[in-house]
Amino acid sequence: MPEHRAPSSRRRRGRPRGGDSGARERIVDAAVAEFGARGYDGATIRAIAARAGVDAALVHHYFGTKDDLFTATIDAPLGPAKAVPGMLAGDLDTAGERIVRYVLETWEDPAFRRRGVAILRAIVANRRSTSLLVGLVSREVLGRIADRLEGPDAERRAALVGSQIVGLMVTRYVLELPPMASAPVDDIVAAVGPTVQRYLTGPLGPPP
Amino acid sequence: MPEHRAPSSRRRRGRPRGGDSGARERIVDAAVAEFGARGYDGATIRAIAARAGVDAALVHHYFGTKDDLFTATIDAPLGPAKAVPGMLAGDLDTAGERIVRYVLETWEDPAFRRRGVAILRAIVANRRSTSLLVGLVSREVLGRIADRLEGPDAERRAALVGSQIVGLMVTRYVLELPPMASAPVDDIVAAVGPTVQRYLTGPLGPPP
Repeated sequence: MPEHRAPSSRRRRGRPRGGDSGARERIVDAAVAEFGARGYDGATIRAIAARAGVDAALVHHYFGTKDDLFTATIDAPLGPAKAVPGMLAGDLDTAGERIVRYVLETWEDPAFRRRGVAILRAIVANRRSTSLLVGLVSREVLGRIADRLEGPDAERRAALVGSQIVGLMVTRYVLELPPMASAPVDDIVAAVGPTVQRYLTGPLGPPP
Repeated sequence: MPEHRAPSSRRRRGRPRGGDSGARERIVDAAVAEFGARGYDGATIRAIAARAGVDAALVHHYFGTKDDLFTATIDAPLGPAKAVPGMLAGDLDTAGERIVRYVLETWEDPAFRRRGVAILRAIVANRRSTSLLVGLVSREVLGRIADRLEGPDAERRAALVGSQIVGLMVTRYVLELPPMASAPVDDIVAAVGPTVQRYLTGPLGPPP
């Protein structure tokens, strides 16, 4: 899925025409800026192309429809398709803290955070873009967690993990609620890690 | 704070002039619709007044500035100022489940949910309205929880509760992530209640 993040050297050899190697990344950057500034409804392929300094036809050629481009755009800064398998690769009994730490450490980077928050604001404001995000998160994040867990309640567990991680991201990075926004990463990992761990492998109360 | 929700009969006697008794509620309803449809930036006092069938001066008279009206508007559907003291009134050792159940049962009402989601979408899309929401939530929700908890880590505990409750609301009602959106209330209370309880009164890992 993150094909647009392929090293530019490979792309340069593979695609001598139709724009230079950096065009793809410039388009994604432009799309992040444009969707972030104008929301899903307000952003146009034409404006994104202009911002990236390419022809609109090239945007369609690389990314297809506006929906496809939007999905690539939210995948680029949030990077779930790339990150999740790594987080789940090790021992499942310690994955809770690992997941919380990974999310926080990724989002602590100011440039990443600025981009991610702009995209999250734009997504949540609009029903259509919300459903594109939900498709991506269900498939690439919750689906992968559920696959790793197996068992009859795997989907329920994955959704509970999602509820805590989303809440952490929204309160710390979007709302910037004072004590949550300023807490050191280690404190949050210590407090929230056990929650995610219980959702992954612990008792959940009466079975559904 | 929820003075605008006073029974209309009292209001009718107290305020014979300056608009009929229902004007206040009609203005809040109109503001919910207008902020929900156009976001914080797009909504105007003039349009809200027109939608409510009153003069713009009456809106200013009742609610002051656009910021004040917005705060009253998000307080009305979300109702935290009214709800939180009740949730915290009983035994603190069982408050976790009570808080989760209260939030879910309130939001299960379709009319409440439609209104609440529209407002949440509008709020999160905009930095100014986000900061108004954060002020309300910090003061009326997290501040009250921290007051009830006392102790040196009361604010940290309240923020953690906030992170899980916000995540629950966003995944179930705004994103409508499939397994979370369709799970019965009792299942979520059973699974998430212990998380909130631990954040209120349990061990949080190494102290900050």
